[in-house]
Amino acid sequence: MIRLNNDYNEIACSEVMAALQETTPCSYPGYGADEWCQKAAQAILAQLGGKDAEVQFMIGGTQANATLIGAALRPWQSVISADCGHIFAHEAGSIEYTGHKILALPAQNAKLTAKAIAAEAEKYRQSGEADYLTEPKLVFLSSPSEYGTVYSKAELAEIRRVCDAYHLYLYLDGARLGYWLAMPGCDVTLADLAVLTDAFTIGGTKCGAMFGEALVLVNPALREHFRTFRKQTGGTLAKGWLLGLQFYTLFQNGLYFSLARRADELALQLKAALRSAGCEFYLDSCTNQQFLLVSPAQADFLAQRCIFEPLGTWPDGRQCVRLCTSWSTAPARIEALCHELRQLPRA
Amino acid sequence: MIRLNNDYNEIACSEVMAALQETTPCSYPGYGADEWCQKAAQAILAQLGGKDAEVQFMIGGTQANATLIGAALRPWQSVISADCGHIFAHEAGSIEYTGHKILALPAQNAKLTAKAIAAEAEKYRQSGEADYLTEPKLVFLSSPSEYGTVYSKAELAEIRRVCDAYHLYLYLDGARLGYWLAMPGCDVTLADLAVLTDAFTIGGTKCGAMFGEALVLVNPALREHFRTFRKQTGGTLAKGWLLGLQFYTLFQNGLYFSLARRADELALQLKAALRSAGCEFYLDSCTNQQFLLVSPAQADFLAQRCIFEPLGTWPDGRQCVRLCTSWSTAPARIEALCHELRQLPRA
Amino acid sequence: MIRLNNDYNEIACSEVMAALQETTPCSYPGYGADEWCQKAAQAILAQLGGKDAEVQFMIGGTQANATLIGAALRPWQSVISADCGHIFAHEAGSIEYTGHKILALPAQNAKLTAKAIAAEAEKYRQSGEADYLTEPKLVFLSSPSEYGTVYSKAELAEIRRVCDAYHLYLYLDGARLGYWLAMPGCDVTLADLAVLTDAFTIGGTKCGAMFGEALVLVNPALREHFRTFRKQTGGTLAKGWLLGLQFYTLFQNGLYFSLARRADELALQLKAALRSAGCEFYLDSCTNQQFLLVSPAQADFLAQRCIFEPLGTWPDGRQCVRLCTSWSTAPARIEALCHELRQLPRA
Amino acid sequence: MIRLNNDYNEIACSEVMAALQETTPCSYPGYGADEWCQKAAQAILAQLGGKDAEVQFMIGGTQANATLIGAALRPWQSVISADCGHIFAHEAGSIEYTGHKILALPAQNAKLTAKAIAAEAEKYRQSGEADYLTEPKLVFLSSPSEYGTVYSKAELAEIRRVCDAYHLYLYLDGARLGYWLAMPGCDVTLADLAVLTDAFTIGGTKCGAMFGEALVLVNPALREHFRTFRKQTGGTLAKGWLLGLQFYTLFQNGLYFSLARRADELALQLKAALRSAGCEFYLDSCTNQQFLLVSPAQADFLAQRCIFEPLGTWPDGRQCVRLCTSWSTAPARIEALCHELRQLPRA
Repeated sequence: MIRLNNDYNEIACSEVMAALQETTPCSYPGYGADEWCQKAAQAILAQLGGKDAEVQFMIGGTQANATLIGAALRPWQSVISADCGHIFAHEAGSIEYTGHKILALPAQNAKLTAKAIAAEAEKYRQSGEADYLTEPKLVFLSSPSEYGTVYSKAELAEIRRVCDAYHLYLYLDGARLGYWLAMPGCDVTLADLAVLTDAFTIGGTKCGAMFGEALVLVNPALREHFRTFRKQTGGTLAKGWLLGLQFYTLFQNGLYFSLARRADELALQLKAALRSAGCEFYLDSCTNQQFLLVSPAQADFLAQRCIFEPLGTWPDGRQCVRLCTSWSTAPARIEALCHELRQLPRA
Repeated sequence: MIRLNNDYNEIACSEVMAALQETTPCSYPGYGADEWCQKAAQAILAQLGGKDAEVQFMIGGTQANATLIGAALRPWQSVISADCGHIFAHEAGSIEYTGHKILALPAQNAKLTAKAIAAEAEKYRQSGEADYLTEPKLVFLSSPSEYGTVYSKAELAEIRRVCDAYHLYLYLDGARLGYWLAMPGCDVTLADLAVLTDAFTIGGTKCGAMFGEALVLVNPALREHFRTFRKQTGGTLAKGWLLGLQFYTLFQNGLYFSLARRADELALQLKAALRSAGCEFYLDSCTNQQFLLVSPAQADFLAQRCIFEPLGTWPDGRQCVRLCTSWSTAPARIEALCHELRQLPRA
Repeated sequence: MIRLNNDYNEIACSEVMAALQETTPCSYPGYGADEWCQKAAQAILAQLGGKDAEVQFMIGGTQANATLIGAALRPWQSVISADCGHIFAHEAGSIEYTGHKILALPAQNAKLTAKAIAAEAEKYRQSGEADYLTEPKLVFLSSPSEYGTVYSKAELAEIRRVCDAYHLYLYLDGARLGYWLAMPGCDVTLADLAVLTDAFTIGGTKCGAMFGEALVLVNPALREHFRTFRKQTGGTLAKGWLLGLQFYTLFQNGLYFSLARRADELALQLKAALRSAGCEFYLDSCTNQQFLLVSPAQADFLAQRCIFEPLGTWPDGRQCVRLCTSWSTAPARIEALCHELRQLPRA
Repeated sequence: MIRLNNDYNEIACSEVMAALQETTPCSYPGYGADEWCQKAAQAILAQLGGKDAEVQFMIGGTQANATLIGAALRPWQSVISADCGHIFAHEAGSIEYTGHKILALPAQNAKLTAKAIAAEAEKYRQSGEADYLTEPKLVFLSSPSEYGTVYSKAELAEIRRVCDAYHLYLYLDGARLGYWLAMPGCDVTLADLAVLTDAFTIGGTKCGAMFGEALVLVNPALREHFRTFRKQTGGTLAKGWLLGLQFYTLFQNGLYFSLARRADELALQLKAALRSAGCEFYLDSCTNQQFLLVSPAQADFLAQRCIFEPLGTWPDGRQCVRLCTSWSTAPARIEALCHELRQLPRA
């Protein structure tokens, strides 16, 4: 049975596995002071359109989010996030554990809007209660979002303008960045992110690596003693070259994006088949995650053919389920599944 | 040049590499809900002499220490550690970051003594100032210690008695556990640790794994919501089976200990050669780390033949240096080095 | 001009001032180890219907809330509060600063309902995601609420049942407790609170004292090392007897409630006059705080006759304002204001 | 029996009591936005020799220390303190609770030396381990120290030079500041402190006020959002004018210093009598605290005539005891005690 529940259920792409294997006789300095981390950072920086930045390699996404946010904020400052944002809804209070409040705003298409951010920042500014309220200081976006939707370049630019007007950091969680930048019609590049954000992550765990996230620190204010803080929060890998080598492998020649592109194509193929079969979608996603609202009969049908991620029952009795392709999804199996979907029960 | 500066400079033993490679076509549930984590836990639990415990897999040592300690303590409680303890001296304030004070006691042979622990606990009890002092609640040991020394079973039993008398948790950081339990003459076993401690780690990173530490939670009070807290502190690996598989490979058939035993033997061979050459040792270690006090001429001689870890200059002008074997050290290269050591300058 | 903006704008009732003055030649042990703290605790405990409890004196309300909550929770646990709750909306992130998330639920009449609490707790229980979510562990109520509304005994009993069912602590912030328990028709007593909650505060600052809150710890689990934690968070007053003496003065003979009763009566007198004058109320309050929705002309009229607390502009252009009586409000001035209110412009 | 155990055992000087009493019919805005806070700040600022600063009023000393330090530091930064410093030894881990490590250096005469501070900062700079160590960023002094000793202007200037060289904040805890600046031969003034430190407190609790500490923020970097953080940590007094009024009373006309001067004179009178009687002192103090090493017979003799603070038993069997005068000490009673001391047993 094909596992479509998430995009982190296989170990790593063959190129990454081979690169790791090749280092077996080699020894390296620890904690990221190795050649691979340097080469990987260079490979990423080379794609930032000349923008100055620093790359730090992190082990996982929750760790990357909490470390960046904890390092960026003073104690009385808070984070603006969509209420479906991963840091608010799925990371066990990791941001609050660092002492910071999250100001959760109702999401639209699982995204924050520039307007909502501006309204929140303006409410604080107008309140006359700066002594009794946390100071909003950082905007947390994820793209693709929790539900596969993405920000357009124009949307990001508008959010950037709001952030500038209210002195807010803009941080983008790119745990699935590849599936965004590689999707058909995407008008955003790594170089755009280096201009538009203060920091962003390039997710490896879900995009072909064994594990790891590259954190790009664009704003120099966010770089200060970052490595000390990463150690303090337990997030520094002793064998740092493992991260550098993986990202070098993925970024030296475009592999990161080609893996993601194929996964997006398979997701769109699946989406078309589902739509033809009469399925309803929770939100319209063009990336590797697709969210359906299905009847019990449809859920049963799917459950016999693939492993999906159940996301609970709607008031009308329908279930929301996630189907997710990834760098590891076999095209032939998606094709077969699409074929079978013609038999999907109506509602 | 042979790299003897530390024991985490190569990727992983061939068995671990092969096991990881073999999973390339497989897909698994995430976050540790996979079969390998279960099998690895069973393989470890089977060696605890029937003692009930829970095994949680962690990514690294600093993370394991801070997560266990942060989960175990109430806000006003503190940790007793040797002043050379890793959590006090080398982890960038990770314990204080969780809000807890470390009561650092002068080490003897890089170790805590039962007597010193009892004195500290008794000082608190007698102080009459419980309202103004943190409550000592957890004793942190590492064995092997920062300087390669180890605790005997009798020493641990004595410390356990003190911990019982003062209601202290006993936690042992076993980042190099294999090099201890496999060393000639060691009278401690995993089963002993399950009886004598409340929790301990079995280090993988430095003992043959690519990365990872197995945290054995013996005391049920330390197990409550541990996985939630690990997520909250950013320490839960999405592809949890990577950790399970590695520990299963190392523990299903004794590989963990056989790798360590060879490294210890090489270290003792090196120690003997150094001693014959007239070298002075900082402390007497029978594990894979050896600490020398060397003259500038001796340091130069060594630096031409191996990469060592410099640990600073002593008041008498001598340098302290660490030479460290590991699971990956080639016997032939140690033999060659030993041969050359006959030419080591005197002082 | 009469100051009706809040209930903490005068120093203290004459009895408290006299009691403090009388101690001028006396000297006392520090940090609460004095006779007045003991007597005050006894005077309060005597009104708890025989229920065992411990009383700790705190300096202020934000401190009391954060200290109680910080002491009660393990790191991964969270607080359920109304979204208008003081800890969520007006205390500058003080709970998040202690590392805990607040799960903010939409308020009804500025209150939490048993149903909403149960739904939140059940959502967590059903989620199957205990590893990725904070564990709801404490319910925060305030009565009177931020908008002067109160809980009935039946409502509290229902909430208690939910808390028992889901193993939640119930903590009640009684910063204005006197104005609740002394209001006409109140069916709740201190003894009821000792049965129904795990902990609650008896506010002094707003109810006749110079400053101070008495924190009643009913559940023994909440008493452990409380004084240590209070010191650790900077909330222990060196001259602890100042707090004990004030609470003894207020509680030895019912002064606390008689002061509050008069303030409630004045508030109801004012409410009646406002209603007669055609004023609209935001919510129906029977305690010392009254919240009006007024037109600009009405706001101008009021502003010439009293100092009120402006709470912002509603979408329909009306302002929300708070008028607040207290232990210090002069009846004659309220009478005069009521008389003038006959001239209040219509809308 | 005269209470000489500490300097916070009476309520407040008569001038402060009268000033508070006089405000009984008055009402004020809350949270420090009142005229008295403004006037008090002006009275203090007028004594800083024209140096720009901001004054914030705090409730107590532990709170002042933890709030200033918590606001000043980034997460990975640490505090240098004497090992007998109040924050390290008597405040229940309040600094660690804010997440920061204290680097405790052996005290000399209960003080830090410029040399020891420089050595610690230089050790960090030379370590090459900035990624694994906390960054020393703030020096904590108290003057008078825990044992009554004080810093000379030259010592402070030397420490300032070290702080400048290593980019360290210098913060001085002046819980007993009056007893220092008013002592005979003191060569330091408030104006000097404004030049030499980044922040310091002017203690009220122990120096004539009912309670309260004035925190003088000299370095603008330490002022940012300070009031928000004070609220967040529960340290903002609702009736802020209570603090302003007390400090205005003490500082408008030199009362603060005249009260302290008398206490110092009494302490020196007592010291002379003790010395004549053959008593041995732990350290040589010229301020209101005197620390003796006494035999059991001497301790008994003293215990029949005054309440002192016992500080434990020395290895040679002698007790260390504190005798402490204050603004409230009656000269006649000290005179009588001095007279009786002629009968003090020898050793």
